[in-house]
Amino acid sequence: MPELRKDPVTKEWVIIATERSRRPNDFRHADESAEDRPEFVDNCPFCPGNEAMTPPEVMAYRSEQTEPDTEGWWIRVVPNKFPALSVEGELNRQGFGMYDMMNGIGAHEVIVETPKHNVSPASLAPNQFKEVIWAYRDRFIDLSHDKRFKYILIFRNHGKVAGASLEHPHSQLVALPMVPMDVQLKIDGAARYYDHRERCVYCDMIRQEETYGKRVVFSNEHFVVFTPFASKFPFETWVMPRHHAAHFAQETHEMLNTFAEAFQEIMQRLNVALSGAPYNYMLHTAPVNTDREPMFHWHLVIVPRLTIAAGFEMGTGIYINVTSPEDAAEHLRNADPTQAAKPAMAVH
Amino acid sequence: MPELRKDPVTKEWVIIATERSRRPNDFRHADESAEDRPEFVDNCPFCPGNEAMTPPEVMAYRSEQTEPDTEGWWIRVVPNKFPALSVEGELNRQGFGMYDMMNGIGAHEVIVETPKHNVSPASLAPNQFKEVIWAYRDRFIDLSHDKRFKYILIFRNHGKVAGASLEHPHSQLVALPMVPMDVQLKIDGAARYYDHRERCVYCDMIRQEETYGKRVVFSNEHFVVFTPFASKFPFETWVMPRHHAAHFAQETHEMLNTFAEAFQEIMQRLNVALSGAPYNYMLHTAPVNTDREPMFHWHLVIVPRLTIAAGFEMGTGIYINVTSPEDAAEHLRNADPTQAAKPAMAVH
Repeated sequence: MPELRKDPVTKEWVIIATERSRRPNDFRHADESAEDRPEFVDNCPFCPGNEAMTPPEVMAYRSEQTEPDTEGWWIRVVPNKFPALSVEGELNRQGFGMYDMMNGIGAHEVIVETPKHNVSPASLAPNQFKEVIWAYRDRFIDLSHDKRFKYILIFRNHGKVAGASLEHPHSQLVALPMVPMDVQLKIDGAARYYDHRERCVYCDMIRQEETYGKRVVFSNEHFVVFTPFASKFPFETWVMPRHHAAHFAQETHEMLNTFAEAFQEIMQRLNVALSGAPYNYMLHTAPVNTDREPMFHWHLVIVPRLTIAAGFEMGTGIYINVTSPEDAAEHLRNADPTQAAKPAMAVH
Repeated sequence: MPELRKDPVTKEWVIIATERSRRPNDFRHADESAEDRPEFVDNCPFCPGNEAMTPPEVMAYRSEQTEPDTEGWWIRVVPNKFPALSVEGELNRQGFGMYDMMNGIGAHEVIVETPKHNVSPASLAPNQFKEVIWAYRDRFIDLSHDKRFKYILIFRNHGKVAGASLEHPHSQLVALPMVPMDVQLKIDGAARYYDHRERCVYCDMIRQEETYGKRVVFSNEHFVVFTPFASKFPFETWVMPRHHAAHFAQETHEMLNTFAEAFQEIMQRLNVALSGAPYNYMLHTAPVNTDREPMFHWHLVIVPRLTIAAGFEMGTGIYINVTSPEDAAEHLRNADPTQAAKPAMAVH
């Protein structure tokens, strides 16, 4: 019998179609393994030496004696060359008969995670992965000083199926002039729960998940990695701080290091369990420049792209998930993170 | 400058990234042309003679002298062999700590649109296409008598990229025990507009679109075909009755024939403009078995699958649309529906 499960925050239903249940190797997908690529690609705009192929950098972690937009960086942040939003200008809200519109003001940046073309979050050196997370925080803080922006999303598309148009390891950041409805839905749900019980819904969720255990993949000192009760997608996985914190960017470097360790380990386990499947991840954190502190609890959402959303999902917003989160968590607990893909020997 | 546009009903924002604007032939996609296939395929469960490969039919339009589950039908409706929801049983709502769940009760049917394997809505004989629409109505009315069901969605997935797992021309129907949140969002938006202006938001939308003209592809006596102001996807197209009507299934056969004519013409224009691109379509109509008549105005939503929703869309619910609806409408006005794909000569 399929099961209907309700997200306790957003009130969205999902269908867990257990009779269609699939194991990891029942999912066919393009092999999007970054580690099989060459370490350097001549015409890649994010490979070192090709800095002129991108707009001028807005930030880089680079050796002190090097100049901006030259080699010598290990993390580099540039504006998206084809931005979805433009950083210059005024919102200029206006009506058009019954319709409302405004200029597409915002920021759209690319965080190049490493000079090497052939790595991924599963195979980056642990220290380099930590620097990626620090770069997320630095760019987040810098952009949140611009009062026009109300919400900042950091996300990553891995593989063509997941919407990546460039191979070189990179994440993206978009700053928006409004709080998106999907984010507001989570904030409203958390506030509703707080009004009722005077507790954070996500703090309660972590407590229940750790007690129940079947959806927990692993945890470390400060973070719990689990597959959510109302998972929309097979192998959807969340990384959540055990302590209550609305804002990702207010965490200390030490806390972010612990986050990076949990984050990288689940990327390695997913890489092993799903043989390098394409994925997206999104960092959900509280809006910025709001009047009052929002009720939220930041977390990371990882979505492997194993199935296709079709007419049913588009017509209802209800997702059919063919793998139960309990099964997914068991597979991920059994995956050995040390077996994750590693870059082939560099061939120049 | 990109533009942010707000859906007047749901309040969802979309980004029209005009600087990334693409023409139809800039979209690469798998050629999913149904018309290049053979007319009959031995192991296809929906081809005539293979009726035993499906669960027993729940309805068919067939010659009087023929038996159920044998040849002689021209439209055949069967339960989905791998249903997302089960028609037998009780909802049995229950809690699990902080979580809510219930049994996955519902109906999941397949409407086989024709015995021929090698046609599509763009190439079906006009009379056969009308019978498909009548079959939608008949199944809708029959299932709405089951008081457990609150919402019935009819949809179609065309092509692998759009989530179709079988080639043979078919649509699907899912009956749900609750009103999905995305549908409720539209109903609430329409009710809010009505409270404010005492007019239907969709009636106003049609009036404004017909006056403005740039987003209208064509219209007939009773239906307007247009690309919505806040289109989430390139070449997203709606077919909407000019008269106010909440329920698709309450339309007369004569009105549905006029709908079928508009519907088939836009499928032909899309087929020509986008060279047989994969697509989904969804019939949005009012919930059933509700306490009071919902404020709604039924319409059909067609979404060609030309781009991939990635981390940004998943993290915000805001879609980046690279083709403005005004451009899309112009391309569709210029597409000649008589040039749509036609089945190759049958080879047996």
